[in-house]
This record gives sequence, C-alpha cells and structure tokens, in this order.
Amino acid sequence: MAKLVLVRHGESQWNLENRFTGWIDVDITEKGADEARDAGRRLKEAGIHFDIAFTSVLKRAIRTLWHVQDAMDALWIPVIKDWRLNERHYGALSGLNKKETAALHGDEQVHIWRRSYDVRPPALSPDDERDSINDPRYAGLTREQVPLTECLQDTVARVLPAWYETIAPQLAAGKNVLIAAHGNSLRALVKHLENIADDAIVAVEIPNGVPLVYDFDAEMKPTRLGFMKD
Amino acid sequence: MAKLVLVRHGESQWNLENRFTGWIDVDITEKGADEARDAGRRLKEAGIHFDIAFTSVLKRAIRTLWHVQDAMDALWIPVIKDWRLNERHYGALSGLNKKETAALHGDEQVHIWRRSYDVRPPALSPDDERDSINDPRYAGLTREQVPLTECLQDTVARVLPAWYETIAPQLAAGKNVLIAAHGNSLRALVKHLENIADDAIVAVEIPNGVPLVYDFDAEMKPTRLGFMKD
Repeated sequence: MAKLVLVRHGESQWNLENRFTGWIDVDITEKGADEARDAGRRLKEAGIHFDIAFTSVLKRAIRTLWHVQDAMDALWIPVIKDWRLNERHYGALSGLNKKETAALHGDEQVHIWRRSYDVRPPALSPDDERDSINDPRYAGLTREQVPLTECLQDTVARVLPAWYETIAPQLAAGKNVLIAAHGNSLRALVKHLENIADDAIVAVEIPNGVPLVYDFDAEMKPTRLGFMKD
Repeated sequence: MAKLVLVRHGESQWNLENRFTGWIDVDITEKGADEARDAGRRLKEAGIHFDIAFTSVLKRAIRTLWHVQDAMDALWIPVIKDWRLNERHYGALSGLNKKETAALHGDEQVHIWRRSYDVRPPALSPDDERDSINDPRYAGLTREQVPLTECLQDTVARVLPAWYETIAPQLAAGKNVLIAAHGNSLRALVKHLENIADDAIVAVEIPNGVPLVYDFDAEMKPTRLGFMKD
C-alpha cells in the first residue's frame, strides 16, 4: 500500500483580501504558515513518512511544503516543482477583489466563472503585465501552455499529464507521495481519483492546510481515508 | 557565460559548540540563518538569477538554500538534493567536541585528521547509532556508498561524479547554478575547478554563507571571480 496525501496551501494574503489569485505569486500569511506547520505536525504524529513530494512553482504552495517538511523533520525528501500543479489561471480576474468583480459583472456571472466546470473568465490580453509568458520560471513553455485564462476543465487537462507522467509512477512503485498545491489543481486530482462528475467537482471544498489522505493498493486503486484533522 | 555560485551553509549548532559534525544532521543557528539570508541578498543585489540549485541531504545546507531562495524571491527554482554533496564523514569523531578529542588523542593526531588529505579518522563500527546506513534518506545506497569514515580524498571521490553527471551539464547548457553545501564537499569542487594540489586544498577556507562565484566560458573553463562580501 502506498499513501498519497494532498495539502492545499495555507491561507494566502489574497485569500485574506478576498481577491482572485490564479497564477499571481502571492505568499502565505502567518495564519497560513501556522496551518502548514499544523498539517506537518499531524502527518508526523500519524507516523507517515514520505519518499517524495510534488508542488507547483508558486510560492504559497512551496512555502507550505517547506513548513510541512520542517514540522516532519524531513527537509531531505526529493521535491519536484511542476508548473502543471499551479492554481487555475483566473484570466482577467487575476488580482481583482471578488466583491468588486461581482459589483462590476453581477453576482450571477461571477458565480458562473467560479463554479462552472467549462466557462472561462475573460482572458488576459497578451500585453497584460499579469501574463506569465516572460516569467523565467515558465521559460521553455509554449504560448499554448502558459494560459491567458482557464476554466476548471482546462486545469484538469494540464494536471492529469503530470499525474500520469510523474506522480502515479511513484505510487505504483510503492512510494508515499505528498502533494502541496492549490484548491483547483487539487480538485482536478480529486475528480480523477474519485470519478467525480463535471458538475459536482466544483462543489468539492478542500480546506487550507488540512491533509487529505488516500491509500493505493497494488492495482493502483485509491481508497479515500479522508481529511486529517485534530 | 554561465555562473556557478558556491555557498557554504550558515553557522550550525555544532560549529558553535565546536563539535565534529560530518553526516550528523545538525541544523543552523539564528546567526547561520542571518548569514544565509545575507548571502541571498547579495546575490539578488548583484542581479544574479539561477536556473537550478543543488544541495546535500543535510538540513543545514538545505535550510541555508531555502533562506537564500527566500531572500532572492526564487522559491520556484528546481532543487536537486544529492547525498554526494554531504559533508565529509568524520567517522568515530562525529559528534565529539574538538577540544575533548584533542585531549584524548593529542593535538597532533587531531590536526592530522582535520588537515591531511588522505588520512581517515577512526571508522564508526557498523553497529554505532551514528551509522547512517538505515536512515531512509540513504535507502538504495550500498554499504560501500554510505561511509563509516572519510578522508578529504574520499569526499572528492564521491563529489566529482555528482559534478560530472548532474552539475557540469547544466553549466555546459548555459545555466546559472547555485550549490549550497559544506566546507569539505565545496573544497572538493574548488580543488577540481582550480587544480589545487592535494597538500594545499586542506588550507583553503570557505567561510559560512559567503558566496564564491565562478564564470564558465563556452569551453567550460572556469574563472574564479571571488567571494561576494558586503
């Protein structure tokens, strides 16, 4: 049996300010750091040992992972940073306050953008300073790979190749895997692991800093063991 | 031109207590964290950007790297943790106070163990709790690879394969490389890069947290640019 643990990053500055974040590289708050350390403490108390960890290239996920590793005294485990585990790209909404956006576009439209599976928010124009194409961390990626906006379906479509290529083979080899990532990249994984329907996945909530644990049997069939709370 | 920067970890708890450390996984002190952050700040002020970083599997080097990455706002860069960049293994001296060791074995003998190129300290016996063979971070390594003691020559012999296999190819591809490691694993690299003689390398001092910078030309010839101090 191999274990997979998903951890959503601790509270970020823009969670606190109620702004759409997406690919903007916002850090976690002190509360978020506490949430991350708590996650690590619980994993340690449960006697779980990880062989490898995966995270995104965004600092709120990486720093969350660092705090978890620190609380587990496991700084040495190999860590793969993969842009495909980034948060859903929020397009032209990136950085906007959610209330202001609702005032501008209407509650219903914002609800659709946030909670539909396949409706994208307005795209960034490629000359927008929020476009990530020239960020060195995405060097080597094509224009098609660096999104200007995404719906959850798009996020699923980029997360799953990372799952099949790099994460699932570790579990198949019997390794315990930790993933520190984001609300929607983790939704993409949960949808896949639990065969959740397109119109149901958007209602699945993954709280900040609460480990979600799965067991994998020798046939790579996952069993959800649930959230690890105090 | 590609840049290679070597950073020795910030002051560790056992640097402070004047104890032989080797492969024992001692953390850095608050002063060590400050030294690491200072190193990152200087690298950032110099406008250096890294494409990849290498470190050991010991937390004093990894945490130093984390502080450097944090000060440079570069949490996203890929990091390879390689046991071959560990500190020289100090054998049966691991954990002993340097003064007590001198009282026990004599100043001259301790000087030889510390400063000769090819004289090993007494080996750990394989049932010693300080032996690392059962530590999960070394799972997959053979008894021959997990040392019971090392002279600097032994350290050079394990560091150079890491250099040739994983580090040098990055520089050859024009990537800027950061290595956060230890006094003796960095000595091994400096010896190789600067063709320093066996009996001269032991006198080369690499201060904690002071970046040492090299430029590589297209023929992979290194030029030492020196230490980066305030």
